[in-house]
Amino acid sequence: MEYAKPLPGYLVQRYHGWKATSYKENEVWYRRLATDGQHPRAMVVSCCDSRVHVTSIFGADQGEFFIHRNIANLIPPYEDSGNRHGTSAAIDYAVNVLKVAHLIVLGHSQCGGVQGCIDMCEGLAPELEAKESFIGRWMDILRPKYDQVANIKDRAEQARELERQTVVVSLENLMTFPFVASAVKDNSLSLHGLWTNIGEGGLECYDPKQGRFHQV
Amino acid sequence: MEYAKPLPGYLVQRYHGWKATSYKENEVWYRRLATDGQHPRAMVVSCCDSRVHVTSIFGADQGEFFIHRNIANLIPPYEDSGNRHGTSAAIDYAVNVLKVAHLIVLGHSQCGGVQGCIDMCEGLAPELEAKESFIGRWMDILRPKYDQVANIKDRAEQARELERQTVVVSLENLMTFPFVASAVKDNSLSLHGLWTNIGEGGLECYDPKQGRFHQV
Amino acid sequence: MEYAKPLPGYLVQRYHGWKATSYKENEVWYRRLATDGQHPRAMVVSCCDSRVHVTSIFGADQGEFFIHRNIANLIPPYEDSGNRHGTSAAIDYAVNVLKVAHLIVLGHSQCGGVQGCIDMCEGLAPELEAKESFIGRWMDILRPKYDQVANIKDRAEQARELERQTVVVSLENLMTFPFVASAVKDNSLSLHGLWTNIGEGGLECYDPKQGRFHQV
Amino acid sequence: MEYAKPLPGYLVQRYHGWKATSYKENEVWYRRLATDGQHPRAMVVSCCDSRVHVTSIFGADQGEFFIHRNIANLIPPYEDSGNRHGTSAAIDYAVNVLKVAHLIVLGHSQCGGVQGCIDMCEGLAPELEAKESFIGRWMDILRPKYDQVANIKDRAEQARELERQTVVVSLENLMTFPFVASAVKDNSLSLHGLWTNIGEGGLECYDPKQGRFHQV
Repeated sequence: MEYAKPLPGYLVQRYHGWKATSYKENEVWYRRLATDGQHPRAMVVSCCDSRVHVTSIFGADQGEFFIHRNIANLIPPYEDSGNRHGTSAAIDYAVNVLKVAHLIVLGHSQCGGVQGCIDMCEGLAPELEAKESFIGRWMDILRPKYDQVANIKDRAEQARELERQTVVVSLENLMTFPFVASAVKDNSLSLHGLWTNIGEGGLECYDPKQGRFHQV
Repeated sequence: MEYAKPLPGYLVQRYHGWKATSYKENEVWYRRLATDGQHPRAMVVSCCDSRVHVTSIFGADQGEFFIHRNIANLIPPYEDSGNRHGTSAAIDYAVNVLKVAHLIVLGHSQCGGVQGCIDMCEGLAPELEAKESFIGRWMDILRPKYDQVANIKDRAEQARELERQTVVVSLENLMTFPFVASAVKDNSLSLHGLWTNIGEGGLECYDPKQGRFHQV
Repeated sequence: MEYAKPLPGYLVQRYHGWKATSYKENEVWYRRLATDGQHPRAMVVSCCDSRVHVTSIFGADQGEFFIHRNIANLIPPYEDSGNRHGTSAAIDYAVNVLKVAHLIVLGHSQCGGVQGCIDMCEGLAPELEAKESFIGRWMDILRPKYDQVANIKDRAEQARELERQTVVVSLENLMTFPFVASAVKDNSLSLHGLWTNIGEGGLECYDPKQGRFHQV
Repeated sequence: MEYAKPLPGYLVQRYHGWKATSYKENEVWYRRLATDGQHPRAMVVSCCDSRVHVTSIFGADQGEFFIHRNIANLIPPYEDSGNRHGTSAAIDYAVNVLKVAHLIVLGHSQCGGVQGCIDMCEGLAPELEAKESFIGRWMDILRPKYDQVANIKDRAEQARELERQTVVVSLENLMTFPFVASAVKDNSLSLHGLWTNIGEGGLECYDPKQGRFHQV
């Protein structure tokens, strides 16, 4: 493996700064985390997007959240084919091994993956339709929800709505996992759906009874 | 989807605290990020583990890192079967759409997924061998590297070495992606392998020439 | 005193969040409390246990409860030896200075101190028997009640019963304080015994006539 | 024990409200806390004063802080006489059993116990000098620090300074506990001293190098 490079200087510097300050001030906690293992109370599934940091919004410190980040915070439907599924493995680990109490799906505004899905559903992104497009095949998880937003004329509004649907479809797909459904039903796991507006710092929570999101 | 619950009170409180402080102080930047989109300089692939926050170690602000977090920071080999692959979709997006300059794989100590892989390779975890075990099938990505650590007698030492190998196998698998290999060869993308020791706040960088990690 | 460290970052962040939200919204009340002093209606004696917050269960706001928290919410018998007694000082202050109207003792399930007492009474905890064991000597307050639960075969049931007895022995010991007994008899102070089940969110109140606890 | 009364109606109502809302929304977490036990990261020693809620200021949820509350957040010097010491028992439990990572002493403004100590040191409170005064004998822990504030003419300023000294004397006395000193020296426990101004919502942290408190 000949291609790995040294760490860029600006990151080396930042690391040493963190080591001398944050690490040093919290050394007791870091050593404790290393010896005692992790016992996070919640798992969060959020987007890879560089603008959304769940640790920031919720002031979460090391040890609090088990965080899986993928494109558009999507959870695929359960499959028992024996194939390799990264998101399913993360959920398996969080629910069955760490036994988290909460599983939070966090969607966000201005999601590139969602925009790509809209373009794909409207025939405007042939490259995503290609069989070998990883982004396209991943966004197929969201396709079934496109109908819900197909008639929204305002393009920004439409994207916002489909972003909220990433949370809804992920929650629905979560319930197709037998071990998730049974943990939810016997009250050892609760699910939560959130959507954040990056520019406004807003946060909405999904209310299944009303079938819509409300400001937190 | 009837099972979603309201956001737990302690997170509502923390969110409002963040909104009134961090968001308020940086509102200009958040609005800029919303309108201009994300232009992260680097992608980081790290573990879901609650104890490892790349944003913390590198003092990264919103907009800096495109972050994919999965079990044991593993990247599978390239497959063009047209199936759905979350990690591959994240790499596709980062390299082809965002055109990040750096792709960093960050492994860590006390990784539960790695320990699970060791147990599986030693026949001590039949539940992971089961076809329908998501964790087991995901950790299969790392299996080929078990031979490199099989003879290390000290159990902790063995786990540390295999954790470093999650980074090596991920870098190797990255190079099987045609678009990654070509971006690396024409110098538009550089790869980096890191491993952090949680308790000691240590950070090591992979040097492919020497085939080992060095303290940063 | 060279060993004090800066406040951990996660608490600094949370404090600033509280200052900008809760404090700001209630600033008038906080300033009133500072100038007018405290006039709590009730004193609560509860356990240090991190899972039991009387302010939470009773939705108590700043200024409502004078709260003394110690191991296993125990009140020792009155002693007039002139030695230093923290719990007695707290009761002295609440009854004679603040003149609270109610004194509530709140016990809880899964109390570590109570389990330690059971182990000690059964000869299973030599370290607690040691003269210099603070926990052991503090739990001696509860020893006299062990006989009441000695024959309960179910270990969990036994612990739950002895937890309820922490409340009973504390109420009995309270009445050995002359100033408490006289305030109770002339109706200027009423005593209450409660026990809460953490997992079920249950609350029971002690009825001395029946010598048992009833669901609230 | 004939003197326990039913729970006052206003508290019964508040309890039922909590049960139907907070408890219900977080039921999964409460059940988890009951079965898994408590693993608080920090112990806090604060005053019984009704106006100071550390859970509020730090947005702490159930399971986070092990909280010991006594008069004026005082920790007495270590004694190995085999007598009963409530505060020492709480510290023993937190450090040796729960193995908390942080021990925070939180003092506050307008502390009645501190004012009582000033009056006592100035000969203005004969009732506190009496041998059987629990409050007086408890505040003896703080007496040695009176000299540091004896010459401050402004009465409010003097009280504020002696309140800060409750934190300093407590930290000093903490270090006389052998198990605390050794945990601090081998980096498995860190100590922190804080003082909060109730009316202003302010928070200061003790810096031993400079021997003074700084705004957080």
